[in-house]
Amino acid sequence: MTDNFVVYVGNKPVMNYVLAVVKEFNSGASEVVIKARGKAISKAVDAAEVSKNRFLTDAKINGITIGTEKMISEEGASNVSIIEIVIGK
Amino acid sequence: MTDNFVVYVGNKPVMNYVLAVVKEFNSGASEVVIKARGKAISKAVDAAEVSKNRFLTDAKINGITIGTEKMISEEGASNVSIIEIVIGK
Repeated sequence: MTDNFVVYVGNKPVMNYVLAVVKEFNSGASEVVIKARGKAISKAVDAAEVSKNRFLTDAKINGITIGTEKMISEEGASNVSIIEIVIGK
Repeated sequence: MTDNFVVYVGNKPVMNYVLAVVKEFNSGASEVVIKARGKAISKAVDAAEVSKNRFLTDAKINGITIGTEKMISEEGASNVSIIEIVIGK
């Protein structure tokens, strides 16, 4: 799997990420990974669900993993949760 | 599995849910399910990760499922994403 097929979810509206996922599948991807961390995790789940239910009705969730990453900022190190949702067609 | 072993994540601080998970395991549960919907999904992932990494180092994630639920409110029906994280010991 290449980085082309990863959609990183951040602060934009959820439909931006849904369209990014749909576009990857239309470009021939057989799997797209939706990644997010921190508060964007909820939006990543929304993006996966909306993509699957409304636009890619033949797609399915191939796997979901969660984890913890260390973030280093000016205020020191802190832990942030991450999620990876693999959608396959 | 009984409802006793389900922790519903909502608006409280994440450590409240971590303690609820740890308490269930200390009461003899072999599996605890963390459930959340909407914006609380990020906090559910945090609760699972903190429980596993800091308090239950012999625990592991047995499964994660996401889905969509219809919510009926005064403003009509809307869809909300849900997550279920199964932690086992």
